[in-house]
Amino acid sequence: MDFKEELKNYQEKVNKELEKYLRDKNCLEGVLNESMEYSLMAGGKRLRPILVLSTYKLFRDDIEKCFPFSVAIEMVHNFSLIHDDLPGIDNDDFRHGKLTNHKKFNEATAILAGDGLLNNAYIVISNDLKKTDINNNHELEKKLQVFNEFSLAVDRMIAGEYVDTEYEGKDITEKELQYIHENKTGALLKLCVRMGAILGGANDKELESLTSYAEKIGLAFQIKDDILSEEGDEKVLGKPVGNDKKMGKCTYVSEYGLEGAKEILDRITKEAVNELESFGDKADFLRGLALYIENRNK
Amino acid sequence: MDFKEELKNYQEKVNKELEKYLRDKNCLEGVLNESMEYSLMAGGKRLRPILVLSTYKLFRDDIEKCFPFSVAIEMVHNFSLIHDDLPGIDNDDFRHGKLTNHKKFNEATAILAGDGLLNNAYIVISNDLKKTDINNNHELEKKLQVFNEFSLAVDRMIAGEYVDTEYEGKDITEKELQYIHENKTGALLKLCVRMGAILGGANDKELESLTSYAEKIGLAFQIKDDILSEEGDEKVLGKPVGNDKKMGKCTYVSEYGLEGAKEILDRITKEAVNELESFGDKADFLRGLALYIENRNK
Repeated sequence: MDFKEELKNYQEKVNKELEKYLRDKNCLEGVLNESMEYSLMAGGKRLRPILVLSTYKLFRDDIEKCFPFSVAIEMVHNFSLIHDDLPGIDNDDFRHGKLTNHKKFNEATAILAGDGLLNNAYIVISNDLKKTDINNNHELEKKLQVFNEFSLAVDRMIAGEYVDTEYEGKDITEKELQYIHENKTGALLKLCVRMGAILGGANDKELESLTSYAEKIGLAFQIKDDILSEEGDEKVLGKPVGNDKKMGKCTYVSEYGLEGAKEILDRITKEAVNELESFGDKADFLRGLALYIENRNK
Repeated sequence: MDFKEELKNYQEKVNKELEKYLRDKNCLEGVLNESMEYSLMAGGKRLRPILVLSTYKLFRDDIEKCFPFSVAIEMVHNFSLIHDDLPGIDNDDFRHGKLTNHKKFNEATAILAGDGLLNNAYIVISNDLKKTDINNNHELEKKLQVFNEFSLAVDRMIAGEYVDTEYEGKDITEKELQYIHENKTGALLKLCVRMGAILGGANDKELESLTSYAEKIGLAFQIKDDILSEEGDEKVLGKPVGNDKKMGKCTYVSEYGLEGAKEILDRITKEAVNELESFGDKADFLRGLALYIENRNK
């Protein structure tokens, strides 16, 4: 199976799984549920759950064991998008070419839909933990470790978003820019790979290489985002281009120029791929993902 | 020890415990941490953690075992206050006589501080679960049950807040009003009592009585809130009185009149106290709490 086909397979699996968690709309909070569904099913790339599943697959084939954590991470990702788009934060009207949540519904609904998705991630995790055989210490320990890392990574994401918002339009140092990226985008991507590795039963050395791979693709992801925000195709991106510059946002492009950013992206991607050496052919999909992040046009 | 003294003791214990979880302000997200602390330490009554601790004390004396879940529930409560006060939802400028979070800081900070507090609750829970002896199946099972009920109750709270917002200014049925109260306020108060009972090791019958007690004080709490919003002392309440009527909010007072609401409050409080019969003197503090909810002036 080539990379694109495998990616599509994973995306379909994730979408099918997410659909199982869609909530009843025949109740008084029906529109709130509709609003959560609107964002969750808006056609995201599913990069985060796919990172969990494909990392797990380096070790084991029963990827359905990772479905709950994969669904949970996609819920958290969408919570963060809804809140970041709010008038009080980035004030964006479009995402993936569709109206943002507060534009489609209203601000109160969007705030609560974001809250609901964040909390739902923990419902999914707690349901999964509750169903785990209490006598299977090894399995429980892995899941409790993952739950803990999950909550800490979400915290980093929120902190990163805060610093990003706070420093908008201000001159920042390279160190501060790195802090924002490591937290806002990097923490969650790293978490995904670590979740897959821990649940799959990676040993310390494997976990270390995969964590390093994840840190590098996380950085690459952000650099690529910065490049696309500068020179992407508005129609493909589904959002206006050039906003970062207009808003005075500090990005890899504002810091290193377009060519400089592209060089760093290329170097980091190669480094990420190198981290996978010990896994042989089995890691081909993760290698493909690194290149996919580098070459995506949205 | 009389009720007031015991209440104060509990409040001090909770405040001391909460202080341990205050976050570092010497980092790039320092103001976000300050903003979370501002709301968390704004002088709330600590009713929710006290319900956990005092219910647990019916069964066991080592109440420190409940500290993590008590802290977590107070974080969730404060998250909900910050988001409810936002311009996009209730647009309130004051709470407990102090500026609301978005007024003291700004809207972006308040949104993210709320998100941070909700997520921090789960950090606290996951840290506690991770530290629990993996071989102590009984303890782990209780905590996993509580974590699950916790996440589900928060979901109900968010749904209740949504319905409350959505139905503002509209004519609603008694059933709809009950739905709002049961979810928005009731679910979390019920959770607190159930957490204390489950962690304390209540049997099925005890859990049933305590759940019923909790449902009744939850309802009483909301009715009293409605009464205070109509005829409370602005200086004591720390927020304007009469807003519910102005906003066209549906409350027990708008539905049953002031006297009608007071009669229901009195009846429900008596019913709550009756649920505690089988616990004898040990439940005196919980009886006191029911009366405290009925008679509070803020």
